[in-house]
Amino acid sequence: MGSVNVYGPPASTAVARVLACLLEKEVKFQLIPVNMAKGKHKAPEYLKIQPFGQVPAFQDESITLFESRAISRYLCDKFADKGNKGLFGNGLLERASIEQWLEAEAQSFNPPSSVLVFQLAFAPRMRLKQDPAVIEQNEGKLAKVLDVYENRLEESRFLAGDDFTLADLSHLPNAQYITGTDRGHLLTSRKNVNRWWEEISSRPSWKKVVEMQKAPPS
Amino acid sequence: MGSVNVYGPPASTAVARVLACLLEKEVKFQLIPVNMAKGKHKAPEYLKIQPFGQVPAFQDESITLFESRAISRYLCDKFADKGNKGLFGNGLLERASIEQWLEAEAQSFNPPSSVLVFQLAFAPRMRLKQDPAVIEQNEGKLAKVLDVYENRLEESRFLAGDDFTLADLSHLPNAQYITGTDRGHLLTSRKNVNRWWEEISSRPSWKKVVEMQKAPPS
Repeated sequence: MGSVNVYGPPASTAVARVLACLLEKEVKFQLIPVNMAKGKHKAPEYLKIQPFGQVPAFQDESITLFESRAISRYLCDKFADKGNKGLFGNGLLERASIEQWLEAEAQSFNPPSSVLVFQLAFAPRMRLKQDPAVIEQNEGKLAKVLDVYENRLEESRFLAGDDFTLADLSHLPNAQYITGTDRGHLLTSRKNVNRWWEEISSRPSWKKVVEMQKAPPS
Repeated sequence: MGSVNVYGPPASTAVARVLACLLEKEVKFQLIPVNMAKGKHKAPEYLKIQPFGQVPAFQDESITLFESRAISRYLCDKFADKGNKGLFGNGLLERASIEQWLEAEAQSFNPPSSVLVFQLAFAPRMRLKQDPAVIEQNEGKLAKVLDVYENRLEESRFLAGDDFTLADLSHLPNAQYITGTDRGHLLTSRKNVNRWWEEISSRPSWKKVVEMQKAPPS
């Protein structure tokens, strides 16, 4: 039996997404550092498993995978009977609703929120200049997306229905960074979004990821 | 038995993705016009099934869905035994490889290619001004993505393996527009990408979608 390996730093939002999924599914894994400051994500041996030179990369027995949402789906399917058994739903209709909101995250929530994460959280740490016009533009885009979420979460406890699923989980990494900046009100000023954010970010799995993000890089 | 309804114009890349999937799966459907010029995609009754005010929206019996890639996955799962049975793979490992390249499409190929589709194909038709800096920037991004594809398609006939799958299909709508512009060389100048593009765009399902795109809007 090979072990499950995740390559990349927990501070990466895409790595954090996979870690949250592994913890929900109670799957043991090894986190393998990739020294991005030294360009190790562009080294030939790493590009063999992640040809775009991004994190995370993933390995389980004979399979290697990239793309955090693809890895998460694989984990839910392979380890269907472990940990949180409802994370990817049961049956065709639950799965369809989860996929719909997982794609809303990937296509509508992620584009503006990942720009804000970079501009507001990463740029200052990397001593890069922020771009106020880019921040303002993406704040506007994210606000419109969150207005849709606010309506959805008025009628539904979680995005895909009554239960916490991969669709909610997938929002955690970007939301965590944004709520830690002075633009956190984008989420917290919306009643239902805030209630949802408080609930999903209180899960032990996510709290553990946040701890891992705070630990000094090995 | 309710019928399968798709809302939106075939000229939309996201609508075209769903149509290609329906035709591969040999699922009968009704295409329901949404007059976007008249703002019908922002009308309250439409927002009930597509809260972001985008196309397509989708309906099958009691379920409504949005997001073209979520709809496509649903179609493959519900109609597993119809039409192209391998479109979403068989078994955990095939599915994982398809998901990986489907996410590569959504996260790496789509962002720059959708900007190019808008700038190069839609803006002239809508008599909007093109932005040369935006075109150049996204051409550079797409070239890097296609370099990764070129390597992948050197070792593999299709993206996810030996067979045409949802991962390949999902690239067709943006690739169709781009190959019809003066930036088509982004795909056609790369030997393996070109071979792959020729093969996937020759499928009867896709040729039918292109015909539908050429028909005058009803």
